[in-house]
Amino acid sequence: METASFITSLATSFSICCALLIVYEFLSRQPGNYPVYYALRQSNGLDLPDLAKPRRPFTWMHEAWQASETDIIALAGLDGAVYLSLFETSLKILGYTAIFCLPVLIPLSATSHNYNTLDNLSNSTSGATVHGSDKFAAFGNMTGPSFGGFDRFAMGNISNHDKNRIWAFLVGSYWLSVVTYVILWKKYKHIVALRSSLLSSTKAQPEDFTVLVHDIPYDKTMTHKEQVDTFFKKLYEESYEKCLIVMKLKKTSKFWKELERFKQKLAQSEAKFLSSKTKAKPEGNRPQHRTRFFGLFGSKVDSINYFKVKIKDLVAKLEAEQSRVRIKEQEGAAFVFFNDRITAATAAQAIHAPSGQTWRTMPAPQPKDVVWENILIPFYERLIRQAVVYLIVFLTVVFYMIPVAFISAVTTWDNLEIALPFMKTIGKVGALHAILQAYLPQIALSVFLALLPMFLEYLSKLEGLFSRSHLIRATAGKYFYFVIFNVFLGVTLGTTLFNSLKRLQENLSFDSVVHLLGSSLPPAASFFITYISLKLFVGYGLELSRILPLLFYHLNKKFMSKTEKELKEASNPGSFKFQQNVPNDMLVLTIALCYAVIAPMVLPFALLYFGIGWLVLRNQALKVYVPSFDSKGRLWPHIHVRILVALLVSQLTMLGYFTIKRFVYTFLLLPLPAATLTFFYLCQNIFYCPFKVTPLETASREVTEMPSIQEIVEDYTPTCLLQEDNTYDDVEQNETEK
Amino acid sequence: METASFITSLATSFSICCALLIVYEFLSRQPGNYPVYYALRQSNGLDLPDLAKPRRPFTWMHEAWQASETDIIALAGLDGAVYLSLFETSLKILGYTAIFCLPVLIPLSATSHNYNTLDNLSNSTSGATVHGSDKFAAFGNMTGPSFGGFDRFAMGNISNHDKNRIWAFLVGSYWLSVVTYVILWKKYKHIVALRSSLLSSTKAQPEDFTVLVHDIPYDKTMTHKEQVDTFFKKLYEESYEKCLIVMKLKKTSKFWKELERFKQKLAQSEAKFLSSKTKAKPEGNRPQHRTRFFGLFGSKVDSINYFKVKIKDLVAKLEAEQSRVRIKEQEGAAFVFFNDRITAATAAQAIHAPSGQTWRTMPAPQPKDVVWENILIPFYERLIRQAVVYLIVFLTVVFYMIPVAFISAVTTWDNLEIALPFMKTIGKVGALHAILQAYLPQIALSVFLALLPMFLEYLSKLEGLFSRSHLIRATAGKYFYFVIFNVFLGVTLGTTLFNSLKRLQENLSFDSVVHLLGSSLPPAASFFITYISLKLFVGYGLELSRILPLLFYHLNKKFMSKTEKELKEASNPGSFKFQQNVPNDMLVLTIALCYAVIAPMVLPFALLYFGIGWLVLRNQALKVYVPSFDSKGRLWPHIHVRILVALLVSQLTMLGYFTIKRFVYTFLLLPLPAATLTFFYLCQNIFYCPFKVTPLETASREVTEMPSIQEIVEDYTPTCLLQEDNTYDDVEQNETEK
Repeated sequence: METASFITSLATSFSICCALLIVYEFLSRQPGNYPVYYALRQSNGLDLPDLAKPRRPFTWMHEAWQASETDIIALAGLDGAVYLSLFETSLKILGYTAIFCLPVLIPLSATSHNYNTLDNLSNSTSGATVHGSDKFAAFGNMTGPSFGGFDRFAMGNISNHDKNRIWAFLVGSYWLSVVTYVILWKKYKHIVALRSSLLSSTKAQPEDFTVLVHDIPYDKTMTHKEQVDTFFKKLYEESYEKCLIVMKLKKTSKFWKELERFKQKLAQSEAKFLSSKTKAKPEGNRPQHRTRFFGLFGSKVDSINYFKVKIKDLVAKLEAEQSRVRIKEQEGAAFVFFNDRITAATAAQAIHAPSGQTWRTMPAPQPKDVVWENILIPFYERLIRQAVVYLIVFLTVVFYMIPVAFISAVTTWDNLEIALPFMKTIGKVGALHAILQAYLPQIALSVFLALLPMFLEYLSKLEGLFSRSHLIRATAGKYFYFVIFNVFLGVTLGTTLFNSLKRLQENLSFDSVVHLLGSSLPPAASFFITYISLKLFVGYGLELSRILPLLFYHLNKKFMSKTEKELKEASNPGSFKFQQNVPNDMLVLTIALCYAVIAPMVLPFALLYFGIGWLVLRNQALKVYVPSFDSKGRLWPHIHVRILVALLVSQLTMLGYFTIKRFVYTFLLLPLPAATLTFFYLCQNIFYCPFKVTPLETASREVTEMPSIQEIVEDYTPTCLLQEDNTYDDVEQNETEK
Repeated sequence: METASFITSLATSFSICCALLIVYEFLSRQPGNYPVYYALRQSNGLDLPDLAKPRRPFTWMHEAWQASETDIIALAGLDGAVYLSLFETSLKILGYTAIFCLPVLIPLSATSHNYNTLDNLSNSTSGATVHGSDKFAAFGNMTGPSFGGFDRFAMGNISNHDKNRIWAFLVGSYWLSVVTYVILWKKYKHIVALRSSLLSSTKAQPEDFTVLVHDIPYDKTMTHKEQVDTFFKKLYEESYEKCLIVMKLKKTSKFWKELERFKQKLAQSEAKFLSSKTKAKPEGNRPQHRTRFFGLFGSKVDSINYFKVKIKDLVAKLEAEQSRVRIKEQEGAAFVFFNDRITAATAAQAIHAPSGQTWRTMPAPQPKDVVWENILIPFYERLIRQAVVYLIVFLTVVFYMIPVAFISAVTTWDNLEIALPFMKTIGKVGALHAILQAYLPQIALSVFLALLPMFLEYLSKLEGLFSRSHLIRATAGKYFYFVIFNVFLGVTLGTTLFNSLKRLQENLSFDSVVHLLGSSLPPAASFFITYISLKLFVGYGLELSRILPLLFYHLNKKFMSKTEKELKEASNPGSFKFQQNVPNDMLVLTIALCYAVIAPMVLPFALLYFGIGWLVLRNQALKVYVPSFDSKGRLWPHIHVRILVALLVSQLTMLGYFTIKRFVYTFLLLPLPAATLTFFYLCQNIFYCPFKVTPLETASREVTEMPSIQEIVEDYTPTCLLQEDNTYDDVEQNETEK
């Protein structure tokens, strides 16, 4: 990439970022926008910025910087804090790496002249065979032999003969790996401690006393409830309290949804009625509507009374269904409640039956975290689903780009004109035609790529996972591998891959893949710097200013939502989208780790990405996103493993690149991948267990404040099974009064 | 191999077998040999064959056949029964396979004429290029183009063009795999049930109440004993009884061993004294000896009194050391005792501390099963040891044959004559010279191969495993991979490998390995038939007749052993040598599975091997081998996995061989390896857990008969820490009397 165009792209991104920052400063001060910019504080009932006091500009940065980890955990949960830990960890890893790479490696590259020589050579004899011809060919493929921009600060500028300088880069690889191990080790330890302190908190949570039992075997002599009672009473005589059998709730939930719909309509009608009570007409207009086909046909009725009657009917129906279901629709899974934490922790991790496919237990997820429909999937079906989903994911990761490329090729203007005749009319408008013709394939491509996370989430749900937090992690994992394979490897290998595909097929081996990876690296570095700066400036600018949610909120307020409750729902930003954010951040980290030694100029940009990201997302974690459940840091082992995968990819890349450089001591890099695998195994052994289950020592801390069993059971009862509080009985009086 | 030489070798083995059988019939009827042939019955105090009653010949077969599984478990433990299950499983798998392969595939091969064609071709045009030249070349390498013996009954005799017949072989591969899955599944289920019933037996064992805790963290405020007490009392208030801290016992055990040595000498002297009391001289000769340098120098003393004084001194010393050690030498591991099985089972499987490297628990092995020295190895050291051992084992498996070949090359007669001049003198005896010259390399080779299991056992011990039964399994696992790699693959690929090594190096890929494997198979089939029949006839003949142990026993009785106790020790045959037997049997099974379809004539021999083996080893299990500990069937998951590895090797082999046959639908075999991996994963998930820990349901069965805590603690106390019963006090009186 030419230096000029590189700087232009950088400057554009930066100015967009500045503009968005100013927009944020302005908009976030309007109280009307508080539900968008301070959603979390509002929902937690915390104090909002006082308009009387003048706020200095960029106070949010100060606030985000000042917040302690305890604040973050209190507001965003341990999951949010763990997500921010990814940024801290990345900052530390890349920061310590930069301490060596920037002042040592860049001067070494900058004072070398390999590219000059290559430039000269290629100018004098185009296509001549120089030594190191492989590398030369690879460069020639992508950028031509013109090395501009940051290329001169990269390892590529070191001549293959300059062994002494290459040694420094080898030291750099070791430095990078060791720094990563040390920081990951410390962080894992820290997060284990955080999780332990949360789990052993003196204020106990419902899930601390609850165990999820699934795959309860069928027994025709008794109901599942009796089975569970017998089984657990025998083992945990004193601590076992009761159980809640999971039921098939299709019909119940249908009734309940209908009931909710009518309740909402009733609330809307009442709001309408209230607003019609003006001073001029204090008795107001009672809203009316027709009963059939979207209120277009049928007799006219008084809406409020009509809905009240409907609701009363439905409540009766629902209650009948609830009592039927509690007896008839018991399925082979249950939540089991204990009266102390130690026994619950024990029961959650013990092997209960000699046969592994029955009486499986696990720590219960938080009530809102439960994926009810998956708990009932039987053991063997779950295995089959898993196998099928893995296969589909594998195929998706490897072959997703093929249909995408096909679609973008098909959706050209000419093809569309043939398929959809009305397009011709549009085509007659000259400017529109030009724009559509240029962007149609890109739009098709973007749509396909945007659909992917949803598709992967759907797949993860099909897999049969029991908790939404696990589902999110599974999706993030799948998306991570997709991104690494398709974006990182895809761009890096780029056209080289397709050119060499035939050669590769003939001789597919570990060697040839490493070689290919190494030879395609340097030209991609500049591309990735642009990519990171775009994500950094524009991405975080949009994240902070929340322009789209803001627009959506105001439109909703104006045209759609009637009641306070609906408005609140519409403005709820939800929790962090870990399933998309984590893989995208991990992609940047992977890029940074891979290029840290080979082209250290990536480091400042990656550092900026994680630095600004850390600040912006802390702000969002403290003020915006409202987490609905918390897996208490289970995200960390997931992130930890992905960072190690990124490190492994980076080590293999370096192995490849050093080979390309014909460096004789490249074999000295071989211990690094082995070390990474060992480190993974070690961490798994030492730190992973407390994330899977609650260690007994943790659970044995005294509890000062605990929910009653009644409350815990209620928390775990599906909403549609909860008794309806018949506040609609007084309604009838209202009606009879009239 | 020529048919004639093949039959000769078979006939020789068979006649040796018959001779050994007759020898057994004769020798096992002599009461003097009962300690060799009925060691187990003697040690268990069961009735021995009554000499008064005439025994029909081959009664042992009838007895072995009649014994039920319960008898076997009662006498040989579940480990012995599980080992015999390997034979039953192999018999079933190969039997059902034979039902399809023998009547269908052999006629198909026998009526084909591929080898005739090849013979003719090679006779007319030696070295001509026929189609299927690869296969032809492979054949040419090993046996020349002369196809005798059973070769005509193998798949090789089917012409490559005869697609219809090859289809039958493809069906055979599927049949083999499905049969294996079904039988393994049933067997695993059965053994899980056996283990559960043993673990939930109403007669509880000491280990049912005991948990091994290791990696107890260092705490300077209290001793390890206080630590363990505090920690477990908090968690298991009512069930926790007490703990036994593992101590460093080097000095104590030195004293104890010395004490035992003196006790033995005292017993010998007393025996000598007793035997000297003849009628002629009723007061006898009190034995005397000199005190220094093997009784050659020093003053003469009365042996009995001397040893009694020595023993008294040592007992005092030992007691002082014992009380010192109990306080000062506590280390970070302990046996923890509970008063009920459920809590012990719970504590053994629970995660106790948030950090994985502290407070690790596991079900306690049986007292005699414990490897005391390994329990104290700290966490990180154990990890390092494991890594190092795995590396060494990998290198051993891959490169063991190189030093062996080197040694056998060096130990030729001529080289030895130069190195050891006295050999020249021996060389002058003509016959001896000839024999030594011929056998020296073979002897060197055999010695090296015989050393291997010991070396692997030593390595497994270094690994830091906690129980001897685990150590035996680990050794068996290592030896299995060695045998598969060096014997099975070594012989199969044989010289082909070294010829093609260069070609392979240039183009190392999955394809080329599969191709190589396939092309070398058929010539090896006859070799393996000979190999199996040798192991079968001679191996089991020797096993049953126990000629060497018998010789050893009688020599010992005559020349070495003085006391009853010593003689008993000398005649103790120990338990089954699982670490050598299992890999060797697995090798035969691997061979059988690999050739079952390709050369079905292997099947009858393998069936005979497992059939006769089953009979002979049942006899040994019922009468000879005395197990000193029992891991309660933990051997089965080990065997199960190895059978699946064998099946996988067989499926890959068939994949290779079908490719060689240029069969277009070979890809239809690809699902088989995938199915094996899935089956492995499934079994691991369903059946493995109850082998690692005791399921709570199993532990919850009521106990009618249990050892007291005092007894349990005593069982787990190392012998050198047990209080000496001072029966030697009366000895002094004896001395003073004189």
